[in-house]
Amino acid sequence: MTMAIRRLDSAAADFWRQLDALLAWESVADETVQAAVAEILAAVRARGDAALLEYTRRFDGVEAASVAELEIPQARLQAALEAVSPELREALESAAARIRAYAERQRLASWRYEEADGTVLGQRVTPLDRVGLYVPGGKAAYPSSVLMNAVPARVAGVGELVMVSPTPRGEVNELVLAAAAVAGVDRCFAVGGAQAVAALAYGTETIPAVDKIVGPGNIYVAAAKRAVFGTVGIDMVAGPSEILVICDGATDPEWVAMDLFSQAEHDEDAQAILVSPDRAFLDAVAEAVGRLLPAQPRRAIIERSLGARGALIAVRDLEEAAAVANRIAPEHLELSVADPEPLLARIRHAGAVFLGRYTAEAVGDYCAGPNHVLPTSRTARFSSPLGVYDFQKRTSIIGCSPEGAARLGRTAAVLARGEGLEAHARSAELRGGGDG
Amino acid sequence: MTMAIRRLDSAAADFWRQLDALLAWESVADETVQAAVAEILAAVRARGDAALLEYTRRFDGVEAASVAELEIPQARLQAALEAVSPELREALESAAARIRAYAERQRLASWRYEEADGTVLGQRVTPLDRVGLYVPGGKAAYPSSVLMNAVPARVAGVGELVMVSPTPRGEVNELVLAAAAVAGVDRCFAVGGAQAVAALAYGTETIPAVDKIVGPGNIYVAAAKRAVFGTVGIDMVAGPSEILVICDGATDPEWVAMDLFSQAEHDEDAQAILVSPDRAFLDAVAEAVGRLLPAQPRRAIIERSLGARGALIAVRDLEEAAAVANRIAPEHLELSVADPEPLLARIRHAGAVFLGRYTAEAVGDYCAGPNHVLPTSRTARFSSPLGVYDFQKRTSIIGCSPEGAARLGRTAAVLARGEGLEAHARSAELRGGGDG
Repeated sequence: MTMAIRRLDSAAADFWRQLDALLAWESVADETVQAAVAEILAAVRARGDAALLEYTRRFDGVEAASVAELEIPQARLQAALEAVSPELREALESAAARIRAYAERQRLASWRYEEADGTVLGQRVTPLDRVGLYVPGGKAAYPSSVLMNAVPARVAGVGELVMVSPTPRGEVNELVLAAAAVAGVDRCFAVGGAQAVAALAYGTETIPAVDKIVGPGNIYVAAAKRAVFGTVGIDMVAGPSEILVICDGATDPEWVAMDLFSQAEHDEDAQAILVSPDRAFLDAVAEAVGRLLPAQPRRAIIERSLGARGALIAVRDLEEAAAVANRIAPEHLELSVADPEPLLARIRHAGAVFLGRYTAEAVGDYCAGPNHVLPTSRTARFSSPLGVYDFQKRTSIIGCSPEGAARLGRTAAVLARGEGLEAHARSAELRGGGDG
Repeated sequence: MTMAIRRLDSAAADFWRQLDALLAWESVADETVQAAVAEILAAVRARGDAALLEYTRRFDGVEAASVAELEIPQARLQAALEAVSPELREALESAAARIRAYAERQRLASWRYEEADGTVLGQRVTPLDRVGLYVPGGKAAYPSSVLMNAVPARVAGVGELVMVSPTPRGEVNELVLAAAAVAGVDRCFAVGGAQAVAALAYGTETIPAVDKIVGPGNIYVAAAKRAVFGTVGIDMVAGPSEILVICDGATDPEWVAMDLFSQAEHDEDAQAILVSPDRAFLDAVAEAVGRLLPAQPRRAIIERSLGARGALIAVRDLEEAAAVANRIAPEHLELSVADPEPLLARIRHAGAVFLGRYTAEAVGDYCAGPNHVLPTSRTARFSSPLGVYDFQKRTSIIGCSPEGAARLGRTAAVLARGEGLEAHARSAELRGGGDG
């Protein structure tokens, strides 16, 4: 079996240009998709339930007399949970508990302080009122994604969590319903696509309007989320999933090969890259890839993904490996080395870092605790994993004492006049006994 | 002088519908603007400095042989600071110190914890590498905005802060340069518009590419920021500024009238609303508005803004006033009442809350300490003031001990097989001695 993965070498004159070419990925902003989505959004906004029912009939082949009929009751979620195997139920509950324990450390707290003259300043943190969670139907329906999105919202104290998930031709994903029961979703509707996003953003007679929509979806869902952003908050619009493994050459090549597979099996756009200063190790991993690939159930996807976007990169040393990682700003970064801490200190951008040979990225996907919703496509340079903080918001608090009002009012008035805003200046001065 | 401000009454049958109509505001997504911006972005991306120089010549009337000529050196910023009046300099420095003191409390810290089997979990917080700060030229050039955007970035520890600000026909705003000196901006270029946003997002031969772009701008700048979002981070795209004053009726009506003016003088789309259970007080404020308006330098703007989007709203009691505030989710909220704390406890959504009669919103615009970049257009339901956290990012840390790898690997494998992802399962199992 020969599976050709691209080889790069940092010693090449145009290495950094080659690396940038490897990373290049532009999301298709298809105008046809955008126009279709705009029409769906406008229809649901204007006609509510009626439009939602029409699109659900057309796109999912589901006939319903009312949106109420499409609500999946709590009892049905519980029944799904009761029906899964004990092993799966325990895995779901254990994963949820670990995600919850980690999330609880992310919760932001309000604070205040008082100045000498009695002026009070603070930051109040409150949960969002209502959040919508989109869960894809069909093959891309992942119960782990339900847990990763819903648990942090619950920990934040979100008032109501509304899940939507399409059931094409009536097909229900039992594991997704079970995960919704474990995560404590409040309401659940069997609708999907841009029409479900519209229902959550604008509200219909039956589906309540939410304040933020999170969760993955296909290109129509992503376009709809982008379009309603501003009316509601959204999480990031994710690109293909990525892993970068940095290895010193002493990890079992089969472990590393399987880690690359685990990323590549997601879809053909996924990107799996290995960086090592040990060229013989790169050869060994290439060999392991070829040897292990035939037994992979998702072999065809892995082959296309590794062939199109994968790479084995030889570097001078681990310091240069860190420089490669910082250029990539990977979603997932494994530091498969003897002593990961000094290497971690050199990493400036990554969604999640997996320390040492024993930490497979896949445990982070399910149950380690940290969220698996992570910044992709180099956005780890400026954004963060999904977390409790995404379901909390801050309000600034300012309370001036009479003395503080006079003192701050003088400063504010000087600056306001510098900007030509006289009413600002007078408003600030009035409390200090100025003549306004 | 009769200045007619709309009156609403919560006792009206269709009050909430009237309120929603008052709040309705859609940003104009002009296709001509978007097409122009797309062309500018593509040109600067492809041709760098040369395109930037061409657009700067065309739109700002500024001739330069190179972009290096458009860099405003540190010495020039310092000279601007030396040249302002002592009073203004002290006001700038005092405001910066207060903004800094508040921002320092917002800084997020990294954390880690270790489980019984030696598995380590954590969240690492790091500053962004490089941030671009857009500052409008001409009449909307506000030094306070330089401080409010730059100081939190500095407190976060951002490596390099690059400011861009157009100088139409060579006209420089000295106070903006002085504020840049006070805030500690690293580099400053006299460029603006969509072309400056493109330069920051993609980098040119002279202007370094940044990781995030913040700061206000006109409709071209806003459209450009939206378009480059994903390549870089951006702050929110703000709507018109808003104030909601809730008053128990015992504050000096002139103070409240002037607070409404201070919002309304920003621009004609600004929204200033007063809510009170005291109808006589609403009359008194209406009277004060009429009496004080003629003396306002920005009277014409105030008149248009209050006339088009202002309102005086009578409610049953303060509890209902809080319900109105939660529907509006205002950018600025004054609780001009005897005892603001119980009322604050009822407020769920606001960008910044100003407690008590002595706290003018205008002190928050300049020097109270909290940021004046705040969520507008009901987005306080899900978003927060600009803060240090906007210039920091989080990375999840996972380090499994061999025992943790075996334990978590089993759970992950069960869930991965439930999702049909066999390579995930095998990758997770291998570390536990599974046979992969």
